[in-house]
Amino acid sequence: MPEYTRTCPIPIQQYPHILLAHGGGGKLMHQLIEKMFISTFGDDSHIPHDATVLTLPTQKIAMTTDSYVVRPLFFPGGDIGSLAIHGTVNDLAMAGARPLYLTVGLILEEGLPMETLWRIVQSMQQAAENAGVKIVTGDTKVVDKGKGDGIFINTAGVGIVEHSLAIAPGSVQPGDILLVNGDLGRHGIAIMALREGLDFETEIESDSAPVADLVGQLLQAGIEIHCLRDLTRGGLASTLNEIAEAAGFEISIDELAIPVREDVQGACELLGFDPLYVANEGRFVAFVPAADAQKALEIMRSHPLGINASQIGSVSATANSLVKLKSRIGAQRILDMLSGEQLPRIC
Amino acid sequence: MPEYTRTCPIPIQQYPHILLAHGGGGKLMHQLIEKMFISTFGDDSHIPHDATVLTLPTQKIAMTTDSYVVRPLFFPGGDIGSLAIHGTVNDLAMAGARPLYLTVGLILEEGLPMETLWRIVQSMQQAAENAGVKIVTGDTKVVDKGKGDGIFINTAGVGIVEHSLAIAPGSVQPGDILLVNGDLGRHGIAIMALREGLDFETEIESDSAPVADLVGQLLQAGIEIHCLRDLTRGGLASTLNEIAEAAGFEISIDELAIPVREDVQGACELLGFDPLYVANEGRFVAFVPAADAQKALEIMRSHPLGINASQIGSVSATANSLVKLKSRIGAQRILDMLSGEQLPRIC
Repeated sequence: MPEYTRTCPIPIQQYPHILLAHGGGGKLMHQLIEKMFISTFGDDSHIPHDATVLTLPTQKIAMTTDSYVVRPLFFPGGDIGSLAIHGTVNDLAMAGARPLYLTVGLILEEGLPMETLWRIVQSMQQAAENAGVKIVTGDTKVVDKGKGDGIFINTAGVGIVEHSLAIAPGSVQPGDILLVNGDLGRHGIAIMALREGLDFETEIESDSAPVADLVGQLLQAGIEIHCLRDLTRGGLASTLNEIAEAAGFEISIDELAIPVREDVQGACELLGFDPLYVANEGRFVAFVPAADAQKALEIMRSHPLGINASQIGSVSATANSLVKLKSRIGAQRILDMLSGEQLPRIC
Repeated sequence: MPEYTRTCPIPIQQYPHILLAHGGGGKLMHQLIEKMFISTFGDDSHIPHDATVLTLPTQKIAMTTDSYVVRPLFFPGGDIGSLAIHGTVNDLAMAGARPLYLTVGLILEEGLPMETLWRIVQSMQQAAENAGVKIVTGDTKVVDKGKGDGIFINTAGVGIVEHSLAIAPGSVQPGDILLVNGDLGRHGIAIMALREGLDFETEIESDSAPVADLVGQLLQAGIEIHCLRDLTRGGLASTLNEIAEAAGFEISIDELAIPVREDVQGACELLGFDPLYVANEGRFVAFVPAADAQKALEIMRSHPLGINASQIGSVSATANSLVKLKSRIGAQRILDMLSGEQLPRIC
């Protein structure tokens, strides 16, 4: 939990809750934007204007967006604010881009405690600083009580692409090795445990983290990355199915090689989940040529966000777009895409 | 009203409403993304991935974001979909940028009719085409019934800046002339009339429109634009107060010169609104040097979105950051910033 030392810049006694007028284009909205957002996200004079003008070091960019509707808003290892930064930073990193600038769109529900908004805004700024990105412009809307759920956050991001690789499912080749940067399932289980009121011996913290720096190190070391994907909604299983489908090859993974913490495995059994389908917010899979795999694994393991990195499988020349799992007991089965909703509103 | 000739690509009988699973990362979400979004927004193979890689013609960009929570979703002259395109395109135009790429973040409420989503998606694509922008990536979240309000849309945009002007309140100079590109108040009044069930002789249609092409023509003609702002939430009055505050000069406007349609004026009187505070979605104010004012006005008037353009005021050297209005009867009064919420959820 980050420590918030700054007092809320909006007088809480006068405005304990968000009012419709905080999104109405008048004085209260401007007070909120100037005193809370600009004072926290930076004195970049562009923020109050309609758009921000930026000069990029290159013409090749990556662009992405995600909305965040996670419940509850605060959870072990993060909150909706840090998640909204990490998720979008990671999406840019998955294109091999260096994330630079984020926009923030807030949809607040009338009645949201001002203090809650303030905690989230501070968390966003702290996460942005840690991830090396700048929040450059934003928008605030307020919806009537009962027409939202506290706060929804959209972030969109721009990053620069400084390599000439085509990092995409279409670049996946037979023989490619699959690496993941750490243990799976913690984000989804942290959220579900909180929702279900489960109490484990050790608290399961979300893995929410910005992985762009780790990806940047792989690229700088000259690893010929073919494809990257973060393992969010639908988890590893759904992601690999998407890639197998798009690449047109079979992917084989080995359950024993997939790192899952014992407490997460236990919680999954208790809750009836398969960790391979559970969402992560700081984990990704990298497809690299076999010749680069060992070097890539070493780079990952020497980074704080890749200590438990593991080689989990490979791509075969079979053109059937399936994902096959060799289970713990050695049996092989097809790992299908998640068909319904496993964990609603985990991000 | 645009005509929607294409049948909904998701079988309505099987999925008449949005389910939580449409945002869960599994098969239903992928079906929605592929069949509805990609098939409508373009076959750009980037869309299903985490981020889109783009090569820009220049390194100087503008970046913006807005969320849209308008109620009702459909109104005379537009809908939440077209509004979400126009609003963000216009924000980029206000930085003097040529809008190129948009991201779309959808927050859907469980139970939203699939047909409604389909109408909105088609309207977004049509509006994007008209505005000359491309929707390049997106995200879909679904929240439980009762925790949203049908659909909220966030769009973020990137445009390129091809001029060397600093279009911002800080560039406003004493002597600058204020131009608006048309009659004011129609968007807000169209929404309010619908909400209040008011029936006018002629239907008041929203002015929602993309003004980037008009701004581009002013720039191409060499008009030395000092500042541009679209007149959305808070209307002309709030916008001018923001600019006066940031520029540090007094702004004077002439009520008689401000174009307001008679039916809009009548509706304002009926509803108790002042058209100068009512939101527009296709109107902007331009601050230009007196020497360029006539030429700029002519360019505006020869554009379909500037037929009723008008010179409404000027900037004086008085350093008191006030906005003064010369009323119809010749009296002068201070035009303050909107202090509460005049029209909730008009965009």
